[in-house]
Amino acid sequence: MTMSDAAIVVEQDRRELDLIDRVQRSFDNCTDPRLKELMYALVKHLHAFLRETRLTEEEWTRAIEFLTAVGRITDDKRQEFILLSDVLGVSMQTIAINNAAYKNATEATVFGPFFAEGSPEVAMGGDISGGAAGEPCWVHGSVTDTSGNPVANALIEVWEADAEGFYDVQYGDGRTAARAHLYTGADGTYCFWAITPTPYPIPHDGPVGEMLEAVGRSPMRASHLHFMVTAPGLRRLVTHIFVRGDEYLGSDTVFGVKDSLVKDFQRPSTTSAPGGRSIDGPWSAVQFDIVLAPAEA
Amino acid sequence: MTMSDAAIVVEQDRRELDLIDRVQRSFDNCTDPRLKELMYALVKHLHAFLRETRLTEEEWTRAIEFLTAVGRITDDKRQEFILLSDVLGVSMQTIAINNAAYKNATEATVFGPFFAEGSPEVAMGGDISGGAAGEPCWVHGSVTDTSGNPVANALIEVWEADAEGFYDVQYGDGRTAARAHLYTGADGTYCFWAITPTPYPIPHDGPVGEMLEAVGRSPMRASHLHFMVTAPGLRRLVTHIFVRGDEYLGSDTVFGVKDSLVKDFQRPSTTSAPGGRSIDGPWSAVQFDIVLAPAEA
Ligand SMILES: [Fe+2]
Ligand SMILES: [Fe+2]
Repeated sequence: MTMSDAAIVVEQDRRELDLIDRVQRSFDNCTDPRLKELMYALVKHLHAFLRETRLTEEEWTRAIEFLTAVGRITDDKRQEFILLSDVLGVSMQTIAINNAAYKNATEATVFGPFFAEGSPEVAMGGDISGGAAGEPCWVHGSVTDTSGNPVANALIEVWEADAEGFYDVQYGDGRTAARAHLYTGADGTYCFWAITPTPYPIPHDGPVGEMLEAVGRSPMRASHLHFMVTAPGLRRLVTHIFVRGDEYLGSDTVFGVKDSLVKDFQRPSTTSAPGGRSIDGPWSAVQFDIVLAPAEA
Repeated sequence: MTMSDAAIVVEQDRRELDLIDRVQRSFDNCTDPRLKELMYALVKHLHAFLRETRLTEEEWTRAIEFLTAVGRITDDKRQEFILLSDVLGVSMQTIAINNAAYKNATEATVFGPFFAEGSPEVAMGGDISGGAAGEPCWVHGSVTDTSGNPVANALIEVWEADAEGFYDVQYGDGRTAARAHLYTGADGTYCFWAITPTPYPIPHDGPVGEMLEAVGRSPMRASHLHFMVTAPGLRRLVTHIFVRGDEYLGSDTVFGVKDSLVKDFQRPSTTSAPGGRSIDGPWSAVQFDIVLAPAEA
Protein backbone atom coordinates (compact mmCIF):
# COMPACT_ATOMS: atom_id res chain seq x y z
CA MET A 1 0.00 0.00 0.00
CA THR A 2 1.20 3.50 -0.80
CA MET A 3 -0.72 6.70 -0.28
CA SER A 4 -1.02 9.82 -2.36
CA ASP A 5 -0.31 13.12 -0.62
CA ALA A 6 -4.02 13.90 -0.47
CA ALA A 7 -4.77 10.51 1.03
CA ILE A 8 -2.08 11.10 3.65
CA VAL A 9 -3.72 14.37 4.70
CA VAL A 10 -7.10 12.66 4.99
CA GLU A 11 -5.62 9.77 6.95
CA GLN A 12 -3.76 12.14 9.28
CA ASP A 13 -6.97 14.05 9.96
CA ARG A 14 -8.86 10.83 10.60
CA ARG A 15 -6.27 9.67 13.14
CA GLU A 16 -6.34 12.94 15.07
CA LEU A 17 -10.13 13.15 15.15
CA ASP A 18 -10.45 9.47 16.05
CA LEU A 19 -8.16 10.03 19.04
CA ILE A 20 -10.30 12.93 20.29
CA ASP A 21 -13.35 10.71 19.96
CA ARG A 22 -11.71 7.90 21.92
CA VAL A 23 -10.57 10.25 24.70
CA GLN A 24 -14.04 11.78 25.02
CA ARG A 25 -15.70 8.37 25.08
CA SER A 26 -13.40 7.34 27.95
CA PHE A 27 -15.55 9.63 30.12
CA ASP A 28 -18.81 7.96 29.08
CA ASN A 29 -19.14 6.09 32.37
CA CYS A 30 -18.84 9.22 34.47
CA THR A 31 -21.98 9.37 36.64
CA ASP A 32 -21.66 13.08 37.43
CA PRO A 33 -23.19 14.82 34.39
CA ARG A 34 -21.50 18.17 35.03
CA LEU A 35 -18.05 16.58 35.52
CA LYS A 36 -18.58 14.61 32.31
CA GLU A 37 -19.54 17.80 30.45
CA LEU A 38 -16.43 19.55 31.75
CA MET A 39 -14.12 16.68 30.75
CA TYR A 40 -15.62 16.47 27.25
CA ALA A 41 -15.14 20.20 26.77
CA LEU A 42 -11.64 20.15 28.25
CA VAL A 43 -10.58 17.41 25.83
CA LYS A 44 -12.21 19.22 22.92
CA HIS A 45 -10.46 22.53 23.55
CA LEU A 46 -7.08 21.10 24.63
CA HIS A 47 -6.88 18.97 21.49
CA ALA A 48 -8.05 21.86 19.30
CA PHE A 49 -5.11 23.85 20.70
CA LEU A 50 -2.66 21.03 19.90
CA ARG A 51 -4.00 20.52 16.38
CA GLU A 52 -4.22 24.19 15.49
CA THR A 53 -0.68 24.97 16.66
CA ARG A 54 0.78 21.61 15.47
CA LEU A 55 2.54 21.57 18.85
CA THR A 56 5.97 19.95 18.56
CA GLU A 57 7.24 17.27 20.92
CA GLU A 58 9.89 19.74 22.20
CA GLU A 59 7.19 22.32 22.94
CA TRP A 60 5.15 19.70 24.79
CA THR A 61 8.23 18.90 26.90
CA ARG A 62 8.73 22.61 27.61
CA ALA A 63 5.10 22.93 28.69
CA ILE A 64 5.49 19.99 31.09
CA GLU A 65 8.65 21.59 32.52
CA PHE A 66 6.85 24.91 32.93
CA LEU A 67 3.91 23.37 34.81
CA THR A 68 6.34 21.38 36.96
CA ALA A 69 8.12 24.63 37.91
CA VAL A 70 4.77 26.29 38.70
CA GLY A 71 3.99 23.32 40.97
CA ARG A 72 7.38 23.44 42.67
CA ILE A 73 7.14 27.10 43.77
CA THR A 74 3.55 26.80 44.97
CA ASP A 75 3.03 26.41 48.72
CA ASP A 76 0.71 27.70 51.47
CA LYS A 77 1.94 31.26 50.99
CA ARG A 78 2.58 31.38 47.24
CA GLN A 79 -0.04 30.30 44.69
CA GLU A 80 1.64 30.35 41.29
CA PHE A 81 -1.26 28.50 39.59
CA ILE A 82 -3.61 31.38 40.51
CA LEU A 83 -1.00 33.83 39.25
CA LEU A 84 -0.86 31.87 35.98
CA SER A 85 -4.66 31.91 35.73
CA ASP A 86 -4.59 35.67 36.42
CA VAL A 87 -2.03 36.59 33.75
CA LEU A 88 -3.84 34.46 31.13
CA GLY A 89 -7.09 36.28 31.88
CA VAL A 90 -8.67 33.02 33.05
CA SER A 91 -9.52 34.42 36.48
CA MET A 92 -11.15 37.53 34.99
CA GLN A 93 -13.07 35.50 32.41
CA THR A 94 -14.44 33.24 35.16
CA ILE A 95 -15.53 36.37 37.03
CA ALA A 96 -17.07 37.85 33.90
CA ILE A 97 -19.03 34.66 33.21
CA ASN A 98 -20.36 34.48 36.76
CA ASN A 99 -21.14 38.15 37.21
CA ALA A 100 -23.36 38.61 34.22
CA ALA A 101 -24.02 42.10 33.00
CA TYR A 102 -26.98 43.08 35.18
CA LYS A 103 -28.75 46.31 34.47
CA ASN A 104 -26.76 49.08 36.12
CA ALA A 105 -25.04 47.05 38.87
CA THR A 106 -21.39 47.83 39.59
CA GLU A 107 -18.98 45.50 37.79
CA ALA A 108 -16.86 42.90 39.59
CA THR A 109 -13.15 42.29 39.21
CA VAL A 110 -10.49 39.91 40.58
CA PHE A 111 -10.43 39.11 44.28
CA GLY A 112 -6.62 38.88 44.38
CA PRO A 113 -4.49 37.03 46.93
CA PHE A 114 -4.26 39.74 49.62
CA PHE A 115 -7.64 39.74 51.36
CA ALA A 116 -7.41 38.86 55.06
CA GLU A 117 -10.20 37.94 57.48
CA GLY A 118 -10.69 39.90 60.68
CA SER A 119 -9.85 43.42 59.55
CA PRO A 120 -10.41 46.25 62.08
CA GLU A 121 -13.68 48.20 61.98
CA VAL A 122 -13.50 51.94 61.40
CA ALA A 123 -16.29 54.42 62.13
CA MET A 124 -17.86 56.48 59.37
CA GLY A 125 -15.21 58.94 58.22
CA GLY A 126 -12.44 56.94 59.99
CA ASP A 127 -8.97 56.12 58.69
CA ILE A 128 -8.16 52.66 57.31
CA SER A 129 -4.44 53.32 56.73
CA GLY A 130 -3.33 52.00 60.13
CA GLY A 131 -0.03 53.78 59.69
CA ALA A 132 0.68 52.53 56.15
CA ALA A 133 2.84 54.94 54.16
CA GLY A 134 0.99 56.87 51.48
CA GLU A 135 -0.79 60.03 50.48
CA PRO A 136 -4.16 60.55 52.22
CA CYS A 137 -7.23 59.76 50.10
CA TRP A 138 -10.82 60.57 51.01
CA VAL A 139 -13.19 57.87 49.67
CA HIS A 140 -16.94 58.49 49.72
CA GLY A 141 -20.09 57.34 48.01
CA SER A 142 -23.29 55.37 48.39
CA VAL A 143 -24.58 51.84 48.16
CA THR A 144 -27.89 51.28 46.38
CA ASP A 145 -29.77 48.43 44.76
CA THR A 146 -30.47 48.38 41.01
CA SER A 147 -33.75 50.28 41.58
CA GLY A 148 -31.84 53.10 43.24
CA ASN A 149 -32.92 52.37 46.81
CA PRO A 150 -30.21 53.16 49.38
CA VAL A 151 -28.82 50.12 51.21
CA ALA A 152 -28.35 50.88 54.90
CA ASN A 153 -25.87 48.95 57.03
CA ALA A 154 -24.09 47.32 54.03
CA LEU A 155 -20.72 45.86 55.03
CA ILE A 156 -17.87 47.48 53.09
CA GLU A 157 -14.48 45.75 53.32
CA VAL A 158 -11.52 47.59 51.79
CA TRP A 159 -7.81 46.77 51.40
CA GLU A 160 -4.89 48.14 49.41
CA ALA A 161 -1.10 48.17 49.02
CA ASP A 162 0.99 50.85 50.71
CA ALA A 163 3.16 53.40 48.89
CA GLU A 164 5.98 50.79 48.69
CA GLY A 165 3.69 48.49 46.69
CA PHE A 166 3.23 45.95 49.50
CA TYR A 167 0.17 44.70 51.36
CA ASP A 168 0.50 44.38 55.15
CA VAL A 169 0.48 40.56 54.89
CA GLN A 170 3.54 40.66 52.63
CA TYR A 171 5.73 42.06 55.41
CA GLY A 172 5.27 38.84 57.38
CA ASP A 173 5.49 40.69 60.71
CA GLY A 174 1.83 40.41 61.69
CA ARG A 175 1.00 44.07 61.06
CA THR A 176 -2.50 45.12 59.96
CA ALA A 177 -2.56 48.25 57.82
CA ALA A 178 -4.41 49.68 54.85
CA ARG A 179 -7.32 47.31 55.43
CA ALA A 180 -10.53 47.77 57.40
CA HIS A 181 -14.29 47.44 57.29
CA LEU A 182 -17.19 49.79 57.92
CA TYR A 183 -20.96 49.99 57.38
CA THR A 184 -23.13 52.34 55.34
CA GLY A 185 -25.35 54.73 57.24
CA ALA A 186 -29.17 54.83 57.23
CA ASP A 187 -29.09 56.79 53.94
CA GLY A 188 -26.78 54.22 52.25
CA THR A 189 -23.74 56.49 52.17
CA TYR A 190 -20.25 55.82 53.43
CA CYS A 191 -16.93 57.65 53.70
CA PHE A 192 -13.44 56.92 55.01
CA TRP A 193 -9.81 57.95 54.77
CA ALA A 194 -7.46 55.62 52.89
CA ILE A 195 -4.22 56.19 50.97
CA THR A 196 -4.08 57.08 47.27
CA PRO A 197 -3.51 53.77 45.41
CA THR A 198 -0.13 53.27 43.69
CA PRO A 199 0.98 50.58 41.16
CA TYR A 200 2.69 47.38 42.32
CA PRO A 201 4.03 44.25 40.58
CA ILE A 202 2.55 40.79 41.12
CA PRO A 203 5.15 38.36 42.54
CA HIS A 204 7.37 37.84 39.49
CA ASP A 205 10.40 35.90 40.73
CA GLY A 206 8.92 32.53 39.63
CA PRO A 207 7.99 30.78 36.37
CA VAL A 208 5.03 33.11 35.72
CA GLY A 209 7.38 36.09 36.01
CA GLU A 210 9.79 34.34 33.62
CA MET A 211 6.96 33.80 31.17
CA LEU A 212 5.92 37.48 31.35
CA GLU A 213 9.57 38.42 30.71
CA ALA A 214 9.82 36.02 27.74
CA VAL A 215 6.73 37.50 26.08
CA GLY A 216 7.65 41.13 26.83
CA ARG A 217 4.92 41.78 29.39
CA SER A 218 5.18 43.88 32.55
CA PRO A 219 4.25 42.36 35.96
CA MET A 220 2.65 45.65 37.05
CA ARG A 221 -0.92 46.07 38.22
CA ALA A 222 -2.73 49.34 37.70
CA SER A 223 -3.17 51.29 40.97
CA HIS A 224 -6.32 50.17 42.77
CA LEU A 225 -8.27 49.97 46.01
CA HIS A 226 -10.10 46.69 46.74
CA PHE A 227 -13.75 46.60 47.81
CA MET A 228 -15.96 43.74 48.95
CA VAL A 229 -19.53 44.83 49.64
CA THR A 230 -22.07 42.59 51.36
CA ALA A 231 -25.74 43.19 52.13
CA PRO A 232 -28.68 40.80 52.75
CA GLY A 233 -30.75 39.96 49.67
CA LEU A 234 -28.16 41.43 47.31
CA ARG A 235 -25.29 39.88 45.37
CA ARG A 236 -21.96 40.22 47.13
CA LEU A 237 -19.70 42.45 45.06
CA VAL A 238 -15.93 41.94 44.83
CA THR A 239 -14.30 44.76 42.92
CA HIS A 240 -11.66 47.52 42.81
CA ILE A 241 -11.60 51.16 41.89
CA PHE A 242 -8.80 52.34 39.61
CA VAL A 243 -7.19 55.75 39.26
CA ARG A 244 -7.97 57.67 36.07
CA GLY A 245 -4.71 58.59 34.32
CA ASP A 246 -2.74 55.73 35.92
CA GLU A 247 0.07 54.60 33.61
CA TYR A 248 -0.84 50.88 33.89
CA LEU A 249 -4.58 51.15 33.15
CA GLY A 250 -4.03 49.81 29.63
CA SER A 251 -1.67 47.03 30.66
CA ASP A 252 -2.91 45.76 34.03
CA THR A 253 -1.23 42.35 34.06
CA VAL A 254 -4.28 40.49 35.40
CA PHE A 255 -6.79 42.31 33.14
CA GLY A 256 -8.76 43.62 36.12
CA VAL A 257 -9.48 47.08 34.70
CA LYS A 258 -13.00 47.89 33.51
CA ASP A 259 -13.84 51.36 32.23
CA SER A 260 -16.70 51.75 34.68
CA LEU A 261 -14.31 51.16 37.59
CA VAL A 262 -11.83 53.90 36.62
CA LYS A 263 -12.53 56.89 38.86
CA ASP A 264 -11.44 60.51 39.04
CA PHE A 265 -9.19 61.01 42.01
CA GLN A 266 -9.53 64.73 42.61
CA ARG A 267 -6.66 66.79 44.01
CA PRO A 268 -8.12 69.50 46.24
CA SER A 269 -5.77 72.43 46.71
CA THR A 270 -7.03 73.28 50.18
CA THR A 271 -5.43 72.17 53.43
CA SER A 272 -8.85 71.77 55.01
CA ALA A 273 -10.07 68.26 54.36
CA PRO A 274 -13.28 66.36 55.23
CA GLY A 275 -13.92 65.39 58.84
CA GLY A 276 -12.31 68.61 60.05
CA ARG A 277 -8.88 67.27 59.07
CA SER A 278 -6.14 69.68 58.06
CA ILE A 279 -3.54 68.36 55.59
CA ASP A 280 -0.33 70.16 54.73
CA GLY A 281 0.80 68.11 51.70
CA PRO A 282 -1.11 66.70 48.71
CA TRP A 283 -4.20 64.57 49.19
CA SER A 284 -6.90 63.13 46.93
CA ALA A 285 -10.63 62.51 47.02
CA VAL A 286 -12.70 59.98 45.08
CA GLN A 287 -16.39 59.20 44.85
CA PHE A 288 -17.52 55.60 44.30
CA ASP A 289 -21.24 54.95 44.12
CA ILE A 290 -21.89 51.23 44.37
CA VAL A 291 -24.90 49.45 42.87
CA LEU A 292 -25.53 45.89 44.06
CA ALA A 293 -27.31 43.35 41.85
CA PRO A 294 -30.09 41.19 43.31
CA ALA A 295 -28.97 38.00 45.05
CA GLU A 296 -28.87 34.95 42.79
CA ALA A 297 -32.01 32.86 42.63
CA MET B 1 -29.92 53.33 32.40
CA THR B 2 -31.69 49.99 32.36
CA MET B 3 -31.16 47.19 29.89
CA SER B 4 -33.55 44.83 28.23
CA ASP B 5 -32.82 41.12 28.52
CA ALA B 6 -31.57 41.04 24.92
CA ALA B 7 -29.28 43.99 25.54
CA ILE B 8 -27.89 42.22 28.61
CA VAL B 9 -27.00 39.16 26.51
CA VAL B 10 -25.28 41.33 23.92
CA GLU B 11 -23.41 43.29 26.59
CA GLN B 12 -22.33 40.07 28.35
CA ASP B 13 -20.97 38.69 25.08
CA ARG B 14 -19.16 41.93 24.35
CA ARG B 15 -17.45 41.88 27.75
CA GLU B 16 -16.26 38.30 27.36
CA LEU B 17 -14.96 38.80 23.82
CA ASP B 18 -13.34 42.11 24.75
CA LEU B 19 -11.44 40.38 27.55
CA ILE B 20 -10.12 37.71 25.16
CA ASP B 21 -9.00 40.46 22.81
CA ARG B 22 -7.19 42.31 25.60
CA VAL B 23 -5.45 39.16 26.82
CA GLN B 24 -4.29 38.28 23.31
CA ARG B 25 -3.05 41.81 22.66
CA SER B 26 -0.96 41.62 25.85
CA PHE B 27 1.33 39.30 23.87
CA ASP B 28 1.76 41.77 21.00
CA ASN B 29 5.27 42.75 22.10
CA CYS B 30 6.52 39.16 22.14
CA THR B 31 9.53 39.05 19.82
CA ASP B 32 9.47 35.25 19.38
CA PRO B 33 6.84 34.69 16.67
CA ARG B 34 6.24 31.03 17.56
CA LEU B 35 5.85 31.76 21.28
CA LYS B 36 3.42 34.56 20.40
CA GLU B 37 1.43 32.20 18.18
CA LEU B 38 1.28 29.62 20.97
CA MET B 39 0.13 32.17 23.57
CA TYR B 40 -2.57 33.55 21.26
CA ALA B 41 -3.87 30.05 20.60
CA LEU B 42 -3.65 29.05 24.27
CA VAL B 43 -5.72 32.08 25.28
CA LYS B 44 -8.22 31.43 22.50
CA HIS B 45 -8.84 27.80 23.45
CA LEU B 46 -8.69 28.24 27.24
CA HIS B 47 -11.26 31.03 27.10
CA ALA B 48 -13.43 29.06 24.66
CA PHE B 49 -13.48 26.28 27.27
CA LEU B 50 -14.51 28.69 30.03
CA ARG B 51 -17.21 30.33 27.94
CA GLU B 52 -18.66 27.12 26.54
CA THR B 53 -18.89 25.44 29.95
CA ARG B 54 -19.81 28.65 31.81
CA LEU B 55 -17.30 27.49 34.41
CA THR B 56 -18.40 28.45 37.92
CA GLU B 57 -16.13 30.14 40.43
CA GLU B 58 -16.28 26.99 42.61
CA GLU B 59 -15.19 24.84 39.65
CA TRP B 60 -12.32 27.24 38.97
CA THR B 61 -11.23 26.88 42.60
CA ARG B 62 -11.44 23.08 42.31
CA ALA B 63 -9.27 23.18 39.15
CA ILE B 64 -6.63 25.27 40.94
CA GLU B 65 -6.66 22.80 43.85
CA PHE B 66 -6.30 19.86 41.45
CA LEU B 67 -3.31 21.40 39.64
CA THR B 68 -1.76 22.29 43.00
CA ALA B 69 -2.05 18.63 44.09
CA VAL B 70 -0.52 17.47 40.78
CA GLY B 71 2.39 19.84 41.44
CA ARG B 72 2.81 18.67 45.02
CA ILE B 73 3.22 14.95 44.18
CA THR B 74 5.58 15.59 41.25
CA ASP B 75 9.30 15.10 41.91
CA ASP B 76 12.36 13.61 40.17
CA LYS B 77 10.83 10.11 40.28
CA ARG B 78 7.14 10.87 39.82
CA GLN B 79 5.85 13.02 36.96
CA GLU B 80 2.13 13.55 37.56
CA PHE B 81 1.86 16.28 34.88
CA ILE B 82 2.94 13.76 32.22
CA LEU B 83 0.46 11.26 33.64
CA LEU B 84 -2.25 13.93 33.37
CA SER B 85 -1.22 14.66 29.78
CA ASP B 86 -1.32 10.93 29.07
CA VAL B 87 -4.81 10.26 30.45
CA LEU B 88 -6.25 13.28 28.60
CA GLY B 89 -4.82 11.96 25.33
CA VAL B 90 -2.61 15.07 25.03
CA SER B 91 0.58 13.01 24.84
CA MET B 92 -0.83 10.74 22.11
CA GLN B 93 -2.22 13.69 20.15
CA THR B 94 1.20 15.38 20.22
CA ILE B 95 2.71 12.15 18.94
CA ALA B 96 0.05 11.83 16.25
CA ILE B 97 0.65 15.40 15.07
CA ASN B 98 4.41 14.92 14.88
CA ASN B 99 4.40 11.46 13.34
CA ALA B 100 2.28 12.23 10.33
CA ALA B 101 0.75 9.32 8.49
CA TYR B 102 3.59 8.41 6.16
CA LYS B 103 2.91 5.88 3.47
CA ASN B 104 3.22 2.47 5.05
CA ALA B 105 5.58 3.34 7.92
CA THR B 106 4.89 1.72 11.28
CA GLU B 107 2.87 3.94 13.62
CA ALA B 108 4.32 5.54 16.76
CA THR B 109 2.83 5.52 20.24
CA VAL B 110 3.66 6.92 23.70
CA PHE B 111 7.22 6.71 25.00
CA GLY B 112 6.08 6.18 28.60
CA PRO B 113 8.08 6.88 31.78
CA PHE B 114 9.99 3.58 32.02
CA PHE B 115 12.72 3.76 29.39
CA ALA B 116 16.26 3.60 30.85
CA GLU B 117 19.58 4.36 29.18
CA GLY B 118 22.34 1.77 29.11
CA SER B 119 20.35 -1.43 28.67
CA PRO B 120 22.35 -4.64 28.13
CA GLU B 121 22.97 -5.86 24.60
CA VAL B 122 21.69 -9.29 23.64
CA ALA B 123 22.82 -11.31 20.63
CA MET B 124 20.41 -12.23 17.85
CA GLY B 125 18.02 -14.77 19.35
CA GLY B 126 19.09 -13.86 22.89
CA ASP B 127 16.89 -13.41 25.98
CA ILE B 128 16.00 -9.91 27.23
CA SER B 129 14.11 -11.10 30.34
CA GLY B 130 17.12 -10.93 32.66
CA GLY B 131 15.30 -13.13 35.12
CA ALA B 132 12.02 -11.15 35.12
CA ALA B 133 9.00 -13.33 35.94
CA GLY B 134 6.79 -14.13 32.97
CA GLU B 135 5.85 -16.53 30.22
CA PRO B 136 8.48 -16.85 27.46
CA CYS B 137 7.69 -14.97 24.24
CA TRP B 138 9.56 -15.31 20.96
CA VAL B 139 9.63 -11.96 19.10
CA HIS B 140 10.79 -11.83 15.48
CA GLY B 141 10.49 -9.70 12.39
CA SER B 142 12.26 -7.34 10.05
CA VAL B 143 13.14 -3.68 9.70
CA THR B 144 12.69 -2.07 6.27
CA ASP B 145 12.34 1.42 4.84
CA THR B 146 9.13 2.56 3.15
CA SER B 147 10.41 1.25 -0.20
CA GLY B 148 10.77 -2.22 1.29
CA ASN B 149 14.58 -2.24 1.48
CA PRO B 150 15.88 -4.18 4.48
CA VAL B 151 17.69 -2.04 7.08
CA ALA B 152 20.81 -3.80 8.34
CA ASN B 153 22.30 -3.01 11.73
CA ALA B 154 19.25 -1.03 12.95
CA LEU B 155 19.32 -0.52 16.73
CA ILE B 156 16.30 -2.11 18.42
CA GLU B 157 15.71 -1.16 22.07
CA VAL B 158 12.96 -3.05 23.90
CA TRP B 159 11.51 -2.86 27.43
CA GLU B 160 8.45 -4.20 29.23
CA ALA B 161 6.83 -4.82 32.60
CA ASP B 162 7.18 -8.21 34.32
CA ALA B 163 4.32 -10.56 35.15
CA GLU B 164 3.69 -8.58 38.38
CA GLY B 165 3.03 -5.45 36.30
CA PHE B 166 6.24 -3.68 37.31
CA TYR B 167 9.22 -2.39 35.34
CA ASP B 168 12.67 -3.14 36.78
CA VAL B 169 13.17 0.55 37.67
CA GLN B 170 10.04 0.50 39.83
CA TYR B 171 11.62 -1.98 42.28
CA GLY B 172 14.20 0.64 43.22
CA ASP B 173 16.85 -2.02 43.90
CA GLY B 174 19.02 -1.30 40.84
CA ARG B 175 18.03 -4.44 38.96
CA THR B 176 17.98 -4.53 35.15
CA ALA B 177 15.43 -6.93 33.71
CA ALA B 178 13.03 -7.16 30.78
CA ARG B 179 14.96 -4.52 28.87
CA ALA B 180 17.79 -4.86 26.34
CA HIS B 181 18.98 -3.81 22.90
CA LEU B 182 20.11 -5.66 19.79
CA TYR B 183 20.80 -4.98 16.10
CA THR B 184 19.19 -6.28 12.94
CA GLY B 185 21.24 -8.64 10.79
CA ALA B 186 22.49 -7.99 7.24
CA ASP B 187 19.05 -9.00 5.88
CA GLY B 188 17.23 -6.58 8.21
CA THR B 189 15.71 -9.30 10.38
CA TYR B 190 15.82 -9.63 14.15
CA CYS B 191 14.63 -12.06 16.83
CA PHE B 192 14.83 -12.36 20.61
CA TRP B 193 13.21 -13.97 23.62
CA ALA B 194 11.11 -11.72 25.87
CA ILE B 195 8.16 -12.35 28.18
CA THR B 196 4.54 -12.27 27.06
CA PRO B 197 3.23 -8.77 27.93
CA THR B 198 0.61 -8.47 30.69
CA PRO B 199 -1.57 -5.48 31.71
CA TYR B 200 -0.49 -3.04 34.44
CA PRO B 201 -1.92 0.13 36.02
CA ILE B 202 -0.30 3.54 35.67
CA PRO B 203 0.62 4.98 39.11
CA HIS B 204 -2.84 5.84 40.45
CA ASP B 205 -2.33 6.81 44.09
CA GLY B 206 -2.22 10.55 43.27
CA PRO B 207 -4.58 13.24 41.95
CA VAL B 208 -4.66 11.74 38.44
CA GLY B 209 -5.72 8.39 39.93
CA GLU B 210 -8.39 10.22 41.94
CA MET B 211 -9.61 11.89 38.78
CA LEU B 212 -9.81 8.55 36.93
CA GLU B 213 -11.78 7.15 39.87
CA ALA B 214 -14.15 10.15 39.90
CA VAL B 215 -14.96 9.75 36.19
CA GLY B 216 -15.27 5.95 36.32
CA ARG B 217 -12.11 5.18 34.34
CA SER B 218 -9.66 2.34 34.92
CA PRO B 219 -5.93 3.08 35.41
CA MET B 220 -5.01 -0.05 33.37
CA ARG B 221 -2.83 -0.07 30.31
CA ALA B 222 -3.32 -2.72 27.63
CA SER B 223 -0.51 -5.34 27.63
CA HIS B 224 2.40 -4.15 25.50
CA LEU B 225 6.08 -4.43 24.66
CA HIS B 226 7.97 -1.16 24.04
CA PHE B 227 10.20 -0.66 20.98
CA MET B 228 12.52 2.15 19.98
CA VAL B 229 14.14 1.60 16.59
CA THR B 230 16.99 3.78 15.31
CA ALA B 231 18.83 3.69 11.96
CA PRO B 232 20.80 6.36 10.06
CA GLY B 233 18.81 8.33 7.49
CA LEU B 234 15.49 7.07 8.84
CA ARG B 235 13.04 8.50 11.35
CA ARG B 236 13.48 7.10 14.85
CA LEU B 237 10.40 5.07 15.78
CA VAL B 238 9.03 4.91 19.33
CA THR B 239 6.19 2.43 19.58
CA HIS B 240 4.68 -0.64 21.30
CA ILE B 241 3.15 -3.85 20.13
CA PHE B 242 -0.09 -4.91 21.78
CA VAL B 243 -1.59 -8.38 22.30
CA ARG B 244 -4.65 -9.21 20.20
CA GLY B 245 -7.51 -10.24 22.49
CA ASP B 246 -6.16 -8.32 25.49
CA GLU B 247 -9.01 -7.17 27.73
CA TYR B 248 -7.76 -3.55 27.93
CA LEU B 249 -7.26 -2.90 24.19
CA GLY B 250 -10.44 -0.84 24.05
CA SER B 251 -9.75 1.09 27.25
CA ASP B 252 -5.99 1.66 27.39
CA THR B 253 -5.89 4.56 29.82
CA VAL B 254 -3.28 6.55 27.85
CA PHE B 255 -4.89 5.88 24.41
CA GLY B 256 -1.72 4.25 23.09
CA VAL B 257 -3.43 1.45 21.13
CA LYS B 258 -3.50 1.67 17.34
CA ASP B 259 -5.06 -1.13 15.31
CA SER B 260 -1.92 -1.62 13.26
CA LEU B 261 0.09 -2.25 16.43
CA VAL B 262 -2.14 -5.05 17.73
CA LYS B 263 -0.39 -8.34 16.95
CA ASP B 264 -1.30 -12.02 17.06
CA PHE B 265 0.61 -13.66 19.86
CA GLN B 266 0.58 -17.27 18.75
CA ARG B 267 0.52 -20.11 21.27
CA PRO B 268 2.58 -22.99 19.85
CA SER B 269 1.71 -26.33 21.40
CA THR B 270 5.18 -27.80 20.97
CA THR B 271 7.85 -27.86 23.65
CA SER B 272 10.55 -27.28 21.01
CA ALA B 273 10.98 -23.56 20.61
CA PRO B 274 13.20 -21.37 18.41
CA GLY B 275 16.91 -21.26 19.08
CA GLY B 276 16.96 -24.93 20.07
CA ARG B 277 15.13 -24.03 23.31
CA SER B 278 12.86 -26.60 24.92
CA ILE B 279 9.97 -25.19 26.97
CA ASP B 280 7.75 -27.26 29.24
CA GLY B 281 4.98 -24.79 29.95
CA PRO B 282 3.08 -22.32 27.74
CA TRP B 283 4.91 -19.83 25.55
CA SER B 284 4.01 -17.40 22.79
CA ALA B 285 5.46 -16.13 19.52
CA VAL B 286 4.82 -12.86 17.71
CA GLN B 287 5.97 -11.36 14.43
CA PHE B 288 6.51 -7.59 14.17
CA ASP B 289 7.70 -6.22 10.84
CA ILE B 290 8.85 -2.65 11.29
CA VAL B 291 8.81 -0.01 8.54
CA LEU B 292 10.77 3.18 9.21
CA ALA B 293 9.79 6.52 7.61
CA PRO B 294 12.48 8.71 6.02
CA ALA B 295 14.31 11.06 8.37
CA GLU B 296 12.76 14.51 8.63
CA ALA B 297 14.05 17.13 6.24
FE1 LIG C 1 -4.45 44.34 44.82
FE1 LIG D 1 4.75 0.50 29.32
